[in-house]
Order: sequence, then C-alpha cells, then structure tokens
Amino acid sequence: MSLLVYGTVALDDVKTPSGKRKNLLGGSAAHFSMSARLFTKVHLTGIIGRDFPRQHLAFLKRKGIDLSSLVEGPGKTFHWDGEYKAKDMNTALTLATELGVLAGGDPYVADHQKHSPNVFLANIDPDMQMGLLKMMRRPKLIGLDSMNLWINIKKPSLLKLMKKVNLFVANDGEARAITGESNLVKAAKALRRLGPPLIVIKKGEHGVLFYSDKLMFGFPAYPVEKVVDPTGAGDTFAGGLMGYLSAAKRLSLATLKKAVLYATTTASFNVEGFGMTTTAPLTLKKVNARLKTFNAFAAF
Amino acid sequence: MSLLVYGTVALDDVKTPSGKRKNLLGGSAAHFSMSARLFTKVHLTGIIGRDFPRQHLAFLKRKGIDLSSLVEGPGKTFHWDGEYKAKDMNTALTLATELGVLAGGDPYVADHQKHSPNVFLANIDPDMQMGLLKMMRRPKLIGLDSMNLWINIKKPSLLKLMKKVNLFVANDGEARAITGESNLVKAAKALRRLGPPLIVIKKGEHGVLFYSDKLMFGFPAYPVEKVVDPTGAGDTFAGGLMGYLSAAKRLSLATLKKAVLYATTTASFNVEGFGMTTTAPLTLKKVNARLKTFNAFAAF
Repeated sequence: MSLLVYGTVALDDVKTPSGKRKNLLGGSAAHFSMSARLFTKVHLTGIIGRDFPRQHLAFLKRKGIDLSSLVEGPGKTFHWDGEYKAKDMNTALTLATELGVLAGGDPYVADHQKHSPNVFLANIDPDMQMGLLKMMRRPKLIGLDSMNLWINIKKPSLLKLMKKVNLFVANDGEARAITGESNLVKAAKALRRLGPPLIVIKKGEHGVLFYSDKLMFGFPAYPVEKVVDPTGAGDTFAGGLMGYLSAAKRLSLATLKKAVLYATTTASFNVEGFGMTTTAPLTLKKVNARLKTFNAFAAF
Repeated sequence: MSLLVYGTVALDDVKTPSGKRKNLLGGSAAHFSMSARLFTKVHLTGIIGRDFPRQHLAFLKRKGIDLSSLVEGPGKTFHWDGEYKAKDMNTALTLATELGVLAGGDPYVADHQKHSPNVFLANIDPDMQMGLLKMMRRPKLIGLDSMNLWINIKKPSLLKLMKKVNLFVANDGEARAITGESNLVKAAKALRRLGPPLIVIKKGEHGVLFYSDKLMFGFPAYPVEKVVDPTGAGDTFAGGLMGYLSAAKRLSLATLKKAVLYATTTASFNVEGFGMTTTAPLTLKKVNARLKTFNAFAAF
C-alpha cells in the first residue's frame, strides 16, 4: 500500500576522504524515497526553492516517485554543507546549513494523498511534522525520525509527536540524548515508554537494535569496506524499512525482522557512493542479491 | 583436547557506576580459564606473588583448572586498579598498575603440559608470550591476544609473534591501532596479512567481526541491560572461543561460527557482575540456555 513521506529535499555539499561534491540531490525525504520506491508507491511531500534544478525533478519522477505534493516556495532550496573525517565516518560534521524555503514553509498534502495508509515523518522540524500529521486521515502506520538539533531545541514538540506514532527510528546518539540512558537496551525501553510501540535504533557500521514489547532483536551492519559518503544512510535505512512494511500484508514479527534486514541492506548501498549514485540505479533484484550475501555473513 | 593458557593472574581494584570492589581475582589468564573450563580441560600458566590469597587458589582448583604451572614468585601479585564511567562502559580507565612479580617473571610450563595441542597467549608482554610459545612442542592451535600498551611500546615483538599464531583476537581499538585502518573490514584484512589466518575483532556491546580467507561473519552482542563490570569480558570471550575450538573435532566453518557464538555468550555473563561473580557459577547448561535466547535475538 502507498507510503507518504514528509521531510526535507535538499542540495548538499559533501566532503569525505573520497572527495568533494557540490549541490548533490539530498535531504531526508529524497533519500528516503529513493529507497522506499523499491518496495511500494511513494508520495514525496516537501518544499523546494526556485533554484532547484529541473533535472532533479525529472529524475525523481523517472524513479516513480509521486511529486504531487512537492511544492515550490519563494527563496532557495534547503542547503546542507557537511564533512566526514576518515577517523569517524559515522559522524557528520555540519559546516553550514541554509534553511531557505524551509523557514516558514508549511506542510502541504494534496487531497488525494491524505488517505495514504502509511506515513513517514522524515527528519525536519517536529512542529512541521505535527502539522503534516494533522492533515492525514487515519493512517495505519506512522513512522518518525528526528535529529539531535530538534532533541536539543524542540524536545517538548518531539515528545508530543512521539505519542502519536507507531514506529520511531533513531541513531544511537539520538536515542541516548532523548532518554539520558547510555545502555542502548535501556534507551530502547525508555523510548518505548515515550509512546512508539516499535523502536529501531541504528548504530551505523555496528548494525541495528529493534525493540517492541513482544520482540527484541539485533543485526550487525552489512560489512562495507569502502565507505564513500554516509549522507542519507539513515534515511535510506528508514525508506527500506517503511517501504517493506508498507508493502507487507500485516506487521507480523517475521515481517518486522525482514523489514529491518531490507533497511540494513539498502543503507549499505547508500554509503558506497556520493549522494544517490548507488541508490538511484538500485533494483529489488540487486538488493535481494546483497541480502543473500548478508545472510551468509550474519546467519548462524 | 586440553588447552593451555598463559597470561596474567591479578588482584584487581575496580570502580564502576555499580560500585567499588577491592582485590578481586582477575587477570587475563584467570578470566580466560573461568570461561574455557566450561568446554575443555584448562591448564593455567602464570605467576603470582606471595600475597596471593590461598582461597583464590583453592577456588580455581575447585573449578577444575590445572594449576601445575601457576608459580609463585618473590614479591607482590600483579595489581590493576581501574575505573569505568557510565558514559562509556566499553573503555577501562587504568588508575594504577603494579607489575610486582610480573617484572622479570619468566614463563614456565611443567613438562607434562608442553604437549598441549591448544595454546592461548592471553594478554601479557609479547616477549614473555614468545618465551612461553617456544617451550611448547608443536601445538596445533595457537591463539593470541594483546593490548594497546604492547602495540605502543613493543610492536615489533607483537608483529613477530603474530606470524606464529593461527588465531588473533583484538578489540576494535587495538585492531585499528595495529593496522592504521579505521574501517574494521579493512583492519581485519590487514591483520590477516600480518600472519594469523583467523581474525576475531571484538566490538564490546556492538558484537564481533570474524575474518578468514574463506569466511567473514559478524554477530551483534547479547543485549545486556545491566553492565556491572566489564573487566575480563574480552578474556572471557577468548576463553569461550578457544575452549569451544579445543573441544571441537575439527575447525570447520560451522565450528568457527559456533565458537564465536559461545564466546559472545560467555562474555555476556562476565559483564553482569564484578570480577568472576557471574562466571564462577556458570555451567554449560546456563550458557546453552542463554545461547537459545541469543538465537531468538540475532537469528533471522
């Protein structure tokens, strides 16, 4: 069933030990869509500026992503400038952020998309995420992601939002920052007490921890030897996760495990190239082939 | 088949968020033995001082550990004083180290133990590890562990030793320090090129990465919620690993995976209590029960 994602669509400048790239198509909702589209129909909701390159729009459409609710605002597209150092490829250093049209850009959803049964609130201001959620008509599955910035400056809004979602995705640092628990099992349980029944903690190269009242499990990450650019890996992960869950008939425990495996696998492709170099050409066949390799690596 | 371990036997003062303990029985060879004895006959080689409490000797013997080559030297037992902070329970802060009898204590092996087919060189000065190894008569399986101190001050000795062993165990920090590679898959491959055909990289709460020419695999760690004292977790891991391999008929790929699973499981008990509080009462039955829980956690 269809999946609506709300978040940022950005132009990224990225510097990593592998090189530098300028004005890459990025943003939480864009990376999410590029992965989720492998599993289900994706509707991308967000705002871009007047400077947004037309070829990026054509590219997203070619990938089957519905852009009915990707609106253009007066001003520049959200811009992120970041760097990764060789010693810690898990941590992005933000050099500059230009909000552009994001500042004051109200969420928008076209009427025909308001019944989408699956909604993902990708990383963006939690008040805007709440605004989007209020427009939706009884979604069945709501996923939420955030980041340290919002945990620091808008925690009350984030906590309010957490009570309204089914699934919360966080990286280990965010999970610790929200809960104050350094032990991740305790942090996962503390997150669950904040509302969301399904908790997914991403640990970058160290894999993932899943927690719900009925099921807890963990997987290592796919062993990527050449990490080129981790930007969007978390969004790609969330896209694989929500994409698979949206396509599934029901949320059984087996489905949840499989969704996390697909999330891990799609994210492993993302880090192997700049921007969407490696996720844009992805097909479900390629993902399944890597899932088989991962199986040999992590199964016992 | 029997397994001989050489390393330290220590008295530890430990401070963690859960409390403080003084003069705990510790040391690399002691923690290793407490775990390996679950799988095979263990011969502990090392040196203690005149102050070593008699009840610790009786305790080790009661656990079936052969102490024929645990010699007493003139002076005090090796003493380690360390602390773990709540924010990073993976990293031990050394407050003080008193070598005592370790300084100038030559390795010793009783004649009847020199034919032991399995040898583990637990963390101690690499020159002393080499001295011990030279006394052994054609062991079939030789495992090696070290630590950052020796990588920093005795790297040439360590590298020489690595060429003589089959299995090398390191934590992620050590693997990175020896090879200069921050990516752990690359680090594992670089370690393999230094000699040992079997490489095991321990990542604490993040699990383990195994690498050999024919097989690479990774598992998460058992999800321990209450980490009381991680001292000796790496040695307990190595004990489970070498203990299982020593008892196995042959080193098939399936055996290696199972050995790493047992290593992970025994280590998970170690961190749940001070010193050997949780590993001393362990039985193979309890380990197997937790392995079953781990299976539900990590299998897919």
